[in-house]
Amino acid sequence: MHHPIAEIFSQGEEVITGQVVDSNAAWLSEKLVQMGFVISRHTAVGDKLQDLAELLQEISSRADLCICTGGLGPTIDDLTAEAVALAFGRPLLLDVEALASIERYFSRRKRTMAASNRKQAYLPEGSIRLDNAWGTAPGFALQNGRCWFVFVPGVPSEMKQMFTEQVKTKLEKQFVLQADRLITIKTLGVGESELQQQLNTFNLPEGVRLSFRAAVSEVQVKLLFPADMPETTQENCVNQCLDSIGDAVFAVDELNQSDTQLMDVIGQLMQAEKYTLSVVETLTQGLISAKCLGQEWLLASSYKPMQVINKQDDIAQRAVAIAHKTRQKYRTDLTLVQIYQTAPNQFHDKDQGIVLYNVLITPDQIVQKTITVMGSIEQKQNRAAIKALDFLRRTLQKKCL
Amino acid sequence: MHHPIAEIFSQGEEVITGQVVDSNAAWLSEKLVQMGFVISRHTAVGDKLQDLAELLQEISSRADLCICTGGLGPTIDDLTAEAVALAFGRPLLLDVEALASIERYFSRRKRTMAASNRKQAYLPEGSIRLDNAWGTAPGFALQNGRCWFVFVPGVPSEMKQMFTEQVKTKLEKQFVLQADRLITIKTLGVGESELQQQLNTFNLPEGVRLSFRAAVSEVQVKLLFPADMPETTQENCVNQCLDSIGDAVFAVDELNQSDTQLMDVIGQLMQAEKYTLSVVETLTQGLISAKCLGQEWLLASSYKPMQVINKQDDIAQRAVAIAHKTRQKYRTDLTLVQIYQTAPNQFHDKDQGIVLYNVLITPDQIVQKTITVMGSIEQKQNRAAIKALDFLRRTLQKKCL
Repeated sequence: MHHPIAEIFSQGEEVITGQVVDSNAAWLSEKLVQMGFVISRHTAVGDKLQDLAELLQEISSRADLCICTGGLGPTIDDLTAEAVALAFGRPLLLDVEALASIERYFSRRKRTMAASNRKQAYLPEGSIRLDNAWGTAPGFALQNGRCWFVFVPGVPSEMKQMFTEQVKTKLEKQFVLQADRLITIKTLGVGESELQQQLNTFNLPEGVRLSFRAAVSEVQVKLLFPADMPETTQENCVNQCLDSIGDAVFAVDELNQSDTQLMDVIGQLMQAEKYTLSVVETLTQGLISAKCLGQEWLLASSYKPMQVINKQDDIAQRAVAIAHKTRQKYRTDLTLVQIYQTAPNQFHDKDQGIVLYNVLITPDQIVQKTITVMGSIEQKQNRAAIKALDFLRRTLQKKCL
Repeated sequence: MHHPIAEIFSQGEEVITGQVVDSNAAWLSEKLVQMGFVISRHTAVGDKLQDLAELLQEISSRADLCICTGGLGPTIDDLTAEAVALAFGRPLLLDVEALASIERYFSRRKRTMAASNRKQAYLPEGSIRLDNAWGTAPGFALQNGRCWFVFVPGVPSEMKQMFTEQVKTKLEKQFVLQADRLITIKTLGVGESELQQQLNTFNLPEGVRLSFRAAVSEVQVKLLFPADMPETTQENCVNQCLDSIGDAVFAVDELNQSDTQLMDVIGQLMQAEKYTLSVVETLTQGLISAKCLGQEWLLASSYKPMQVINKQDDIAQRAVAIAHKTRQKYRTDLTLVQIYQTAPNQFHDKDQGIVLYNVLITPDQIVQKTITVMGSIEQKQNRAAIKALDFLRRTLQKKCL
């Protein structure tokens, strides 16, 4: 099986001067590898026209595909289209559709279009326009030499949308691809090295690649199966992993089919029971509630700074009392309360842990869980919110078993 | 003033397949720019010996400095030293000191040294060894063609330690450096192209570089002044920019001296007045409050889903009434209320704007502002929270003038 060679090319002073970490390159590479490309090189250059044009020429002779991000904005230092014109001798022509789309973008927002935005509607001769529903800069694609070039904006949200909705299908038509099968097991509440130890106890079938990836709020276990491995062998292997990890798993995603988030899982569980929820937050200061964005079963949340509690007080009793009162007030099926017993000055010390007391009242039971969070104040806030929501997820899942 | 040209080169399959985001390149670039280098390119390649050697040859003819990360480990896919030997015709020689240091690393940890670790003690002929106090892989440096090459491990903690403790001093000796002065003007509430139009109306002094950067929640205007420009010229230029942008500016940061966030500015203004705040959120669902993390003047926040309002109702009156009631309940100096009059199903449509009605009560006045947010539901939430907080910032700043 032949794997076409792909390169990633990023344009932007902010990338090469280090003001921004180029996460686009990693994101695109992962998608392309999953589709069956081999990635040979990432390159980033700034806003020097000659550098850009030379690099484009080099790539056109050594790669089958190049995805380029950045440099499509309205400002004078956005030079990508100009560099393409120079490198490949393709004059920039006004694309009437692109101009209309940029004009619509501004009129919909009731803003005046700056003259500089007009520049974004000029595309290299012979290129295909890629519409950008999320911003002003259209992308474009063209063949030069051996290489098919795709140009998309550098704003990650716009780039990802355009890749997923337009570029991917075009690549599948343009290239003969055979992808390996990637299964991602998403977990919460166990560390990367713990997971590694758990999974080292059994032998993987020949040819399977196991890897781990620690994201901000979850640890992923990735299993890459060769395209020609029997499906039952693959499934046995996945099930073996799931058994050994246990209830820390909140989702199993197959390549391209889904990217399940913790809130998706909780949303389904809540809707299945037609439950409603109220939340009382302290350390998280609104973040538990903010993460439930768009979930109509969240009927109320409130934050007040934690009063320092006398050490003799029973914090468990107090949390349960708050939960009962809140549940009565808002008449919700569930109430989640998270409080703590630490002086607030410990928030700022990354080496000081904060012990959080979680209570969840459901129609059937009162569940309690103590957790500890460490790190910077922002990390503490985020971890406390995720752990509270994962506590909700585990309780709901136990009920459903 | 001549600025030497630097490149960053990263080796590793995990980088080019996207399993790891290459944060080393950004970190090193920022340090080098601050020292007075100009960065021309970042490149990442995998573990193919021929690719590596070719790239090293290319770089040796076009850059004055190249910092290379990764590929120094003990495994068979760590090929950097071999690639250097091949590219520059410098055989690998056993460095006795390096071997002793690797042996010490293992004996100190009471672990047996694997045979493969011996490989790490072989360095290209004529190179300087860079000791690694944090891991097994020593680094090395050598001149080839016009370029001085520095090779350090890819593990970020080891790389950073070695750069800070050994490489930086060597660079200061090796090169004549003079750093430019970077001023960053941070704004909220104006678009990138609008800002550009505003700033195009006056001529910048010769040699000043103006650039723009749109981050998630702010737009930055960057002014790069040559090191030899008189300070008064620089200051006049900054002041001219500030005047023309107006109250959208929330901070002016100097390179290395600070990185001011909107919440820092609001925190200072609130503390100066000894003000306290309560917040009522709807669309933002706790995010305004969550962004005030660690700010002790926030005494309460609450979220409840918005009741659909009869179009005949006066939403302004309603917001003011909620604000008065909340201020009384929590006895805060300020109360911020943000409500809307749109059906919740419009949240999910990125092209549908949500009109938000903001009211801020202070001891002296009631201020009102209507804003519109668009985009995905997450973007709407984030923009609504930032705009509400920026409304608070502008009101506090007007008071202080």
